[in-house]
Amino acid sequence: MTPENDIPSPLPKPTVVVTMGDPLGVGPEIVVRALSTPRIRQRARFVVRGLEAPLRRAAAEIGVEPFWRRIRHDAPAASTGVGEGVLLLEYAEHEAAGAPRQTPGPTKLGGEASYRFVEDAIADAQREPGDPLRADAIVTAPISKEAWALAGRSRYPGHTELLAARFQARRHLMMFVSPRLRVALATGHIPLLELRDRLTIGKVFDAIDLGIEGALALGVERPRVAVCGLNPHAGEGGILGDEETRLIEPAIRLAVDAGHDVKGPFPADTIFRRAIDGAFDLVVAMYHDQGLIPVKTLEWERAVNCTIGLPVLRTSPDHGTAYDIAGRGVADPQSLLAAIDLAVRAGALEAHRRAQSRSVTQR
Amino acid sequence: MTPENDIPSPLPKPTVVVTMGDPLGVGPEIVVRALSTPRIRQRARFVVRGLEAPLRRAAAEIGVEPFWRRIRHDAPAASTGVGEGVLLLEYAEHEAAGAPRQTPGPTKLGGEASYRFVEDAIADAQREPGDPLRADAIVTAPISKEAWALAGRSRYPGHTELLAARFQARRHLMMFVSPRLRVALATGHIPLLELRDRLTIGKVFDAIDLGIEGALALGVERPRVAVCGLNPHAGEGGILGDEETRLIEPAIRLAVDAGHDVKGPFPADTIFRRAIDGAFDLVVAMYHDQGLIPVKTLEWERAVNCTIGLPVLRTSPDHGTAYDIAGRGVADPQSLLAAIDLAVRAGALEAHRRAQSRSVTQR
Repeated sequence: MTPENDIPSPLPKPTVVVTMGDPLGVGPEIVVRALSTPRIRQRARFVVRGLEAPLRRAAAEIGVEPFWRRIRHDAPAASTGVGEGVLLLEYAEHEAAGAPRQTPGPTKLGGEASYRFVEDAIADAQREPGDPLRADAIVTAPISKEAWALAGRSRYPGHTELLAARFQARRHLMMFVSPRLRVALATGHIPLLELRDRLTIGKVFDAIDLGIEGALALGVERPRVAVCGLNPHAGEGGILGDEETRLIEPAIRLAVDAGHDVKGPFPADTIFRRAIDGAFDLVVAMYHDQGLIPVKTLEWERAVNCTIGLPVLRTSPDHGTAYDIAGRGVADPQSLLAAIDLAVRAGALEAHRRAQSRSVTQR
Repeated sequence: MTPENDIPSPLPKPTVVVTMGDPLGVGPEIVVRALSTPRIRQRARFVVRGLEAPLRRAAAEIGVEPFWRRIRHDAPAASTGVGEGVLLLEYAEHEAAGAPRQTPGPTKLGGEASYRFVEDAIADAQREPGDPLRADAIVTAPISKEAWALAGRSRYPGHTELLAARFQARRHLMMFVSPRLRVALATGHIPLLELRDRLTIGKVFDAIDLGIEGALALGVERPRVAVCGLNPHAGEGGILGDEETRLIEPAIRLAVDAGHDVKGPFPADTIFRRAIDGAFDLVVAMYHDQGLIPVKTLEWERAVNCTIGLPVLRTSPDHGTAYDIAGRGVADPQSLLAAIDLAVRAGALEAHRRAQSRSVTQR
């Protein structure tokens, strides 16, 4: 993987909406810790959707002064509050979810609050161009699926599915980005042996196509894509399985015909090393563990989960609420920081493109 | 993974038999390069089964003086020639296979020769105790499956299968060892979706059991074992597949009942990092890519392929004949060096155990 290509500089500052996640998880403390660096605050207009009390407690625990302006999320002036630094849009009606002296764990109130933050962030991405609250990218801190279920929100098992439904995304993709790897998944959270029915030419093609969209959004100019085989040694010419010839090669041909730079299928055990060494910008994996083993073995702390195929890029840290260590100020903000960094970069490019297309339209 | 526990010192010097591999592949040059270091030659009595001419050419190419004594493999004095340093047992009847000015690639003669070296190394492991040529460990340089097929030796697709058949090994295991990981495979070269029929409680148990045998042979005193799940998130409590509860957990219980330190099933995307960080000495993977992606992504050059379950440990570098670069003196000997290092270590321990049991018997 090579570094992103030159990004026009200076880019417009994007508006990045950050949801605080579950009030009793590590969300509040990693949000505070990540945004406490002045350098990162200079790169975007940040909007945090969350609760004042847990954020203040986290700031006290970490030993930083609260650095945000705050305003009620439903105040008429909410939009105009967006500017330099961090604006907290607070939810007085949900404050009980973050009341002090609770044992970290999934709660109905926490589920209701964290669900609401995400719903409202989605609305931010759908605002009119020109609205200061219009989100150029979304960063989501960890929620608890159990808490969402307690709140009667079990229809969507997680962020990705909720976002895809609300944005009516016909196709969407889980992509993982770490400093040295970008990995797109053709299939997600399904039992391994269900690949027999679930892996299709269309799934592989979509992962290639959306993966390229994601790489472009992150500033890679002409992504060079490697596609994994499904079987050991990528099937070894058909001796070890036929999915390569039956499903993966046709999908690659479709993508090449569409003008993309795509190669494969490659044996999965060696292709990630080649990508790390610079031969490819993106690896398309056929299933969850095939793509996540290299990312997490190599760069656990700095992996970012991206959802591609939505009107805006959504990123999130690659870990959960970590209730076992929450509220003690010891959670590592690295993954959230990396998620914010990607969102800022993609948001700035997106804002730039929008400004360009506007200026073209106005000519 | 923690370093091997204390090995009794000084250990007896083991006899390590090295097969030269395909005469036109990188075998000759990596064997010469690996054994050209005096330090490694002091650690064992090395016997190379191979051809004089390709080894001399490799030495000239690399710029080292031939450092081996040589004797015909079928000379009556062959056994007594074993001693300090390296003894080459040469095969005059196969010299044509390594004649100069051939284009690297699979040939019938090369297949015949390289097959013969392995057959004879197997015989070395079956010699009487006390015979100087009795092999304490075997190291195999790369052969060409195509060349073996040209020589009419297509019954065994590779070293592992030939060794298992000749030693009549009821069970055998592919294990990969790199500086930071030891990984055992419950299944090998089979199409991924055939796991439905091929992954059994017995296969998982054997991989745990033989993996522990292998770790012990390498000097780990009480191996701590982690077992991977098959599905994403190790099945997430049955939501994402039932192989964990149906096959893997019963195998782990059997192993625990047998007195082993075994835990799991763990999500495969995070368990390798935990092993690297020291929590486990061995990871048991359910299938080829699950185990080899972390090994090859992390430590490609230094991974060693070990066959466990034979009367002696067999190791080999984790690459092939590399005809495309063979004969130019540029092949990297790191993986073979690591294979030799493991064989010496295991061979010394094996020789030590044998000496101990003899002295107990004699009392």
